[in-house]
Parts: sequence; structure tokens; C-alpha cells
Amino acid sequence: MAATTDRTTLRRLPDRGAHDRETIHAILDAGLVCHVGFVHDGRPAIIPTGYARVGEHLYLHGSRKNRALLATIGAECCLEVTLLDGIVLARSAFHHSFNYRSAVIYGKGEEVTETEEKERALERFVDQVTPGRAADCRLPSEKELRATLVVKVPLDEASAKIRSGPPKDDAEDMELPHWAGVMPVRDAWGPAEPDTEIPLPEYLKEFERR
Amino acid sequence: MAATTDRTTLRRLPDRGAHDRETIHAILDAGLVCHVGFVHDGRPAIIPTGYARVGEHLYLHGSRKNRALLATIGAECCLEVTLLDGIVLARSAFHHSFNYRSAVIYGKGEEVTETEEKERALERFVDQVTPGRAADCRLPSEKELRATLVVKVPLDEASAKIRSGPPKDDAEDMELPHWAGVMPVRDAWGPAEPDTEIPLPEYLKEFERR
Repeated sequence: MAATTDRTTLRRLPDRGAHDRETIHAILDAGLVCHVGFVHDGRPAIIPTGYARVGEHLYLHGSRKNRALLATIGAECCLEVTLLDGIVLARSAFHHSFNYRSAVIYGKGEEVTETEEKERALERFVDQVTPGRAADCRLPSEKELRATLVVKVPLDEASAKIRSGPPKDDAEDMELPHWAGVMPVRDAWGPAEPDTEIPLPEYLKEFERR
Repeated sequence: MAATTDRTTLRRLPDRGAHDRETIHAILDAGLVCHVGFVHDGRPAIIPTGYARVGEHLYLHGSRKNRALLATIGAECCLEVTLLDGIVLARSAFHHSFNYRSAVIYGKGEEVTETEEKERALERFVDQVTPGRAADCRLPSEKELRATLVVKVPLDEASAKIRSGPPKDDAEDMELPHWAGVMPVRDAWGPAEPDTEIPLPEYLKEFERR
């Protein structure tokens, strides 16, 4: 279990909260984009960015001049990943909702300076999005490695929130003449838009079959 | 044009920035979930939630005890919407990227207390997600209206960021034997999961055809 702190204890709808590592890892591993929350001049800011999970850390990367990334080093930040699973259509406007899985991590960023750890993280950024891709591209040169800032945040203070299943209408609304149920969101990709004569490799065809 | 402030001026890759109202409105109107960034006990926090745009404001809603929402009233917050359009697969790991459209708004939340404005916003929350739905559900009762906190944030300080098109590899990498191009993300929905005997109405069948 990740540590349950004041910030990761859900006050509202506590049945939607989950803190076990497997749940949190699964959400993080299924996501592509995370939202980095940080404080800039005392005010909140959010930047969307790619990420990679390696073990018990979430890794971020960007240019050495990336203000959001720099703002997380040694300072409190918040990383958030949301997977939208469906629209929940209730008979009443009031009970409309989303089915979703989300994970939130609070912690301080730490710059990754060790070359091997940095290389492993940069390969994982590619494979997080497209499994198999790190073995099919030119890996970073020394110069590119130096130009890239990699920051990691531990998953120590993390929580998940999940809603699934049908709408929950009030008993007195059940006979109203409105369709009710869930409209699921599906992962759908392609067709691929090639920038090359090379045929689409098998691990990328997997996306088109989703 | 929305006001360009220090926070909404992109320092990195300024060609990706856009500040015209039409672009920002189009991104906000296409999104379903926004990320609310706020400061809680001096530390950054992010909550994902539904939203609605009405004119030059973004509306949020939730329980009267919703901590994130309460934290935005009269205080600086950040609202962020990201639409992922595709995975950009370059020949080098370094130039891998996403095609996306994102909008970020900085401002202070204001509680909406006027009944008519609140009702209009609550109808819009439903129609933002499923156009046509507000006319096909039970609208909020007086009791539900009272139980719902609605907050609006002006779009005065807003910006958009967009990446589109093929990968941009270095000239010396162009002959490498790796597939390169874009794997687009498509909106895909359904099949609907009914919680009723009522047939799926036409405006919801639209989702299944996407």
C-alpha cells in the first residue's frame, strides 16, 4: 500500500478510492499523458507531458530550459493521470457522471544525473507509449542525453480513484422516459500516417487492430 | 485575443502557442474532462472533473463539500484541457512526440449564485459531454440545485498549444531503417451499455457511429 496521507485520503465518495500499488501501477502503465501540477510564483500551474513509470518512480523529461520540469526539482509537485472509460447517462441530469480511472501522486522531483538510469528512463518513455519501439529507433546520443533533463518523483504518496458500472438514479426517477446507461470510450488508433517507405512493423500494426 | 501574460507566453517552442479565442474555444468545446490545479496548504494539487464552457467562462460543478472546487473560489487556479491526437514516431528516440491540442486558463474562481445562470450551466455540463442530452433527462430539482456548487473562471488569461504533422527528424537520421510517421488517435465509442428497455435515441447513436 502507498502511504495514506491527509492529501490522498478521499473525503468525498470514499468508496471510489484505491491505494494498492497494483491498481496505481496499472493506471499509470495504461496512460500516455500526465498532468504536472506545480507552484510558480505562488500560483498553481499545470503542464501536460509524456512520462514513464520505472518501478516505484514516475519519470518526466524535457528540455533543460523546461520551466515546469525545473519547478518540480526539490519542490512539491502533483502528477495526475486520467483514463476516461465512459459517459454515464442517468435519468436525472444530477446523476450524470463519467466512468474513469485516475491516479494522483504528490512528491518532490529529483533530477536524474546517473547516465545509466537516465538512458533506461529515456527508453522507457518511448516504450510507455508504443511498446517495442525502443528497440526500433535510434537511441539518444551523448549530446542529446546532455540536452535532456530527466526528473523522477517517487510513488510513495499516491492514490487512485475509480468509477465503473451503470448510472445510479434515485428510486423515484427509474420510470422516467429517458434512455439510461453507459456509453463506453474505446481506444482506437490509425490508420497510420507514414513518413517513410518502410512497411509498418508488426508492433505498430497492433495499434491499428485495437 | 486573450490577454498574453507572463504565464501564458510560451518560452519554449513558441511556434506551438496560439492565443486566438476561436482556437481556445474549439479545444475547450471538444474536451470532456479538465484538470483543475489549485494550491492546498501551499502545495500544488490536481483534480480531474467535467466542465462546461458558456461564453467567456469555464464552469465547474460539484458537491458543496468538494475541496478542489472550494479551493478555487476567490483564489488563483489553473484549468487545463488536453486532447491527444496522435503518437509521433520519429527515427530517433529524441524526436518522438505527441500530436495534441491543449488549452490552459489561469484565473480566480467565482461561485455562481444566480439561479438562472446556475441552471443554464448545469444544462450545459450535460450537453458539453453529450449534445442533445439536456433535453432528454430530468433537470435539477430545487434541492439538487442547492446541493450543487457551481464555480466559473473567466477565459481572460488563456492560451492554447498545438502540435500537428509528421515527425521532425535530424537530416542525418533520415535514412535509418526505422518506420516513421504518426499513429493517430481516433474518438471511438460504444457499443452502448443500456440500463433500460428504452431504445437508444438518435443523438446517442451518433456516438456509436464515430
